[in-house]
Amino acid sequence: MVVVVSAMAGVTNRLVRYANEINPLHDAREYDVIVASGEQITAGLTAMALQELGVPARSWLGWQIRFQTDDAHSKARISGVETERLFERLGDGEVPVIAGFQGVTGANRVTTLGRGGSDTTAVALAAALRADRCDIYTDVDGVYTTDPRIVAKARKLATITFEEMLEMASVGAKVLQTRAVELAMKYGVRLQVLSSFDDVPGTFVVGEEEVLEHEQVNGITYSRDEAKITLLRVADRPGVAAGIFGPLAEANINVDMIVQNISPQGDTTDLTFTVGKADLERTVAVIRDLRDRIDYADLRYDPNVVKVSVIGVGMRSHAGIALRMFRTLAEKGINIQVISTSEIKVSVLIEEAYTELAVRALHSAYGLDAV
Amino acid sequence: MVVVVSAMAGVTNRLVRYANEINPLHDAREYDVIVASGEQITAGLTAMALQELGVPARSWLGWQIRFQTDDAHSKARISGVETERLFERLGDGEVPVIAGFQGVTGANRVTTLGRGGSDTTAVALAAALRADRCDIYTDVDGVYTTDPRIVAKARKLATITFEEMLEMASVGAKVLQTRAVELAMKYGVRLQVLSSFDDVPGTFVVGEEEVLEHEQVNGITYSRDEAKITLLRVADRPGVAAGIFGPLAEANINVDMIVQNISPQGDTTDLTFTVGKADLERTVAVIRDLRDRIDYADLRYDPNVVKVSVIGVGMRSHAGIALRMFRTLAEKGINIQVISTSEIKVSVLIEEAYTELAVRALHSAYGLDAV
Repeated sequence: MVVVVSAMAGVTNRLVRYANEINPLHDAREYDVIVASGEQITAGLTAMALQELGVPARSWLGWQIRFQTDDAHSKARISGVETERLFERLGDGEVPVIAGFQGVTGANRVTTLGRGGSDTTAVALAAALRADRCDIYTDVDGVYTTDPRIVAKARKLATITFEEMLEMASVGAKVLQTRAVELAMKYGVRLQVLSSFDDVPGTFVVGEEEVLEHEQVNGITYSRDEAKITLLRVADRPGVAAGIFGPLAEANINVDMIVQNISPQGDTTDLTFTVGKADLERTVAVIRDLRDRIDYADLRYDPNVVKVSVIGVGMRSHAGIALRMFRTLAEKGINIQVISTSEIKVSVLIEEAYTELAVRALHSAYGLDAV
Repeated sequence: MVVVVSAMAGVTNRLVRYANEINPLHDAREYDVIVASGEQITAGLTAMALQELGVPARSWLGWQIRFQTDDAHSKARISGVETERLFERLGDGEVPVIAGFQGVTGANRVTTLGRGGSDTTAVALAAALRADRCDIYTDVDGVYTTDPRIVAKARKLATITFEEMLEMASVGAKVLQTRAVELAMKYGVRLQVLSSFDDVPGTFVVGEEEVLEHEQVNGITYSRDEAKITLLRVADRPGVAAGIFGPLAEANINVDMIVQNISPQGDTTDLTFTVGKADLERTVAVIRDLRDRIDYADLRYDPNVVKVSVIGVGMRSHAGIALRMFRTLAEKGINIQVISTSEIKVSVLIEEAYTELAVRALHSAYGLDAV
């Protein structure tokens, strides 16, 4: 058994606040030195607490194990884990307690893996050690068909596939860090999401081959972190999309849903897309700066939108999943503003006020309600 | 210029409390991992703050510099400092910001140097880099002839010798960590004690050869952290002192002043010594356990005592320093219970209630009052 710990509640936020008080545009290398201390404290305390219970535990920091990462400070990626000494210690009966979230560059600078990075540490280590299972203890007791705060009949799933988990994470279900799930999928690490507080079975996150029969839909999610932007009557010629989305990418703004309609006139087009709410102001500024290069009639934006998604690997073999979604929303009088689909997900953008109504209706429509 | 930082106010105490809440007898190796994080945070924040001022700063932790220490966790001693990379960075115009108080063992475990250890880090580094000077910024603006809270006429000293500083620290003047002063003396590092808050000249701590003319006495100190123990009519035969002080040493109890009087009968002796107040109870228990091996008539103890000392390298060449002390105290009607002397210090144990009276009288008697 190997334990990976994250920081105590509130500690990372406090450290981030210290850094931001000096300068919100601080040096990411120093930021990493500061915030990595949170997991260092927990590693030492957890090792002590285990020793107190008679378990021969020992703490290990990122540089001691050597979690090798690239030098993308504050969002570094693990490139290798040295396991030799860990295997030795495990052989001696020791329980290593590893500070999550942190690594070290080739030049011996401390790095961190981004918020929730301790999940990634755990999965990377499970892969490197070829562990039977990686249990993620968190503040929820598993993955639910939807947000139980909105739908009282939400059910805890016994299993969910990596792909579904990724789609759910990408649309707001903050159970596991996306990169942790990607890594688990890549290396075939079986995950279990469990409660830190209640001793009840959690949800297994596994490969598709481990799930015998797939439900059509396994989850309804929503994300309020969306803002809609529409450019009216954009000149419809080659390179226009690149001319708009290129500068947004340069400004580090992630664009999510995109729809383009041919306008009745034929020579212009209406372009609608969504960005994170926090990026709305910057997005509008970037596009206004493009005024002299991109020709459009008007720029409109709306932060009062929500993205609602239905997710399930069963979609691949079942027709009519999307249709049921559109019908259900229409029956409730909810207008769909933008649609986007992937292989195992259908997402729609609707007015934010309808969030709860839409999620509840869809949860029932796909037969997910607990009996 | 190289900067060494300690933890922010209160941080180390909080971390120590966490560790003690798990188990007061915690694993010192894990304790070190936990408390070393305090300086790590300050190093990152200070580097950021300097960058904000346009200074090209970079933080360095104990293991990054490599402050090599022994493995006496929580009170480790520095055995070497790798300076090669630091010199490189200094050559590039960088200002290294070093996390004080911490080092690393040969096995790559984190160590700490004991409370106030950042002073020691700074001095060790100044020695290794052959720095012109080591400035210690602290919460007082220098070394005073005595405690200004007791004697309004206390004067700040422009210079003091290492030896005097050591004696003053050993009797309660908590300006610098003793080991930092010892190290500075050993390697001839010129220290300056300065205020972190006020931009006024501090006190230089230097070798004796740098001081042209020595005052007879440079400081009056007192320590309330004393408790007196007297064993009445101990059998006076060889090995008795070892029989008492051996077990105390084994129990990790430091004995300070010791006096032994021949009793009138001649075959027994009265033995008086002092220990730290916090050790009084344990000391009494250890001695009571010795009852069947050491023959004594009675055991008495008194925590209401204070040790008052006069300190000055000038004592070496001036006679009558001790005599003036005894006379001054006698004039005020203060009874001396125990006396001990070193080459540059005379200490007496008196009743605690007389502390302020004694310190003020001695400060005047040795001509230390500010005019």
